[in-house]
Amino acid sequence: MPPAPRRHAPPRVDVLRLGHRAARDPRLTTHLALTARAWGAERLFLHPPDTELAARLSRVNGRWGSAFEVVGVKDWRPTVREHSGHVVHLTMYGSPLDVVLPELVAQSSLLAVVGGAKVPAAMYEMADWNVAVGHQPHSEVAALAVLLDRIRGTPAPGALPGASHAIVPMARGKRVVEVHRP
Amino acid sequence: MPPAPRRHAPPRVDVLRLGHRAARDPRLTTHLALTARAWGAERLFLHPPDTELAARLSRVNGRWGSAFEVVGVKDWRPTVREHSGHVVHLTMYGSPLDVVLPELVAQSSLLAVVGGAKVPAAMYEMADWNVAVGHQPHSEVAALAVLLDRIRGTPAPGALPGASHAIVPMARGKRVVEVHRP
Repeated sequence: MPPAPRRHAPPRVDVLRLGHRAARDPRLTTHLALTARAWGAERLFLHPPDTELAARLSRVNGRWGSAFEVVGVKDWRPTVREHSGHVVHLTMYGSPLDVVLPELVAQSSLLAVVGGAKVPAAMYEMADWNVAVGHQPHSEVAALAVLLDRIRGTPAPGALPGASHAIVPMARGKRVVEVHRP
Repeated sequence: MPPAPRRHAPPRVDVLRLGHRAARDPRLTTHLALTARAWGAERLFLHPPDTELAARLSRVNGRWGSAFEVVGVKDWRPTVREHSGHVVHLTMYGSPLDVVLPELVAQSSLLAVVGGAKVPAAMYEMADWNVAVGHQPHSEVAALAVLLDRIRGTPAPGALPGASHAIVPMARGKRVVEVHRP
């Protein structure tokens, strides 16, 4: 079902990815970063930093637009403590998304935290909400996508600011057009 | 926003993953399979077959329940042609999800197709719908999760049939209980 009409702008969202392993997770974290970008998150804080991944996302912005940023962080605690928004940590052990969602959409700014294999217990304490997108093992990419989709709705068609290319939606086939900047 | 109340059961969904590369994609396809399972899809048709991945998902069923099945396929065309439901192919080039969604939720059975790097042109022709979950590059895991979430809603808490363990949702911390089968 499409999201219900809303009365105010959706929250601004930043994402924090904990415990990234560049050797093991390059494609998964790339998918996570692209998902954050596609649903209009503004920044991905990546712990630990990965300059190759940041460069890859910057190239995506060059073609498809947006000012989405990958910010490497060596210590994630200050990122959580000093963020301007409330903190929602995604975990299969948390409260059901459907229960917490009304509180989330009422925020003006959120930091969404997704972990890797082992999330420090401190994260559960520092989060304003520990939220489960279903209580089954699945994927941090899926959990983030559904959270963002529920909070912000599906990204609208059309070129993002700064794009050199955009997709023209069609029932069959592929159509990509160049965007002429003024 | 939570899905609107519905008047009939959500469609049964099978998933077809095209162009899986066991050497390069093991974790991504595992995430995809877990996502399909968590949102109540019944089968993942995996092209080409990957018996290790099928065994991994079978172990997940052993602990967390459900009869979700990974079925390896060497030729994907008969799977598409002979499926009992209509076929929705996820691609960033397709029609916007919000536009197609009312037709999808009205079905009793669907085959959702997700591609890897290069999807054969024939797939675009064989699909009943080519659908974009946003028109930006992101992730087949994210696209499948949002499609299933819109069609079937968030999976409810509680043990699935056959589970030996279940999560008890909580605001902080982790609680897993053993399920006593009758």
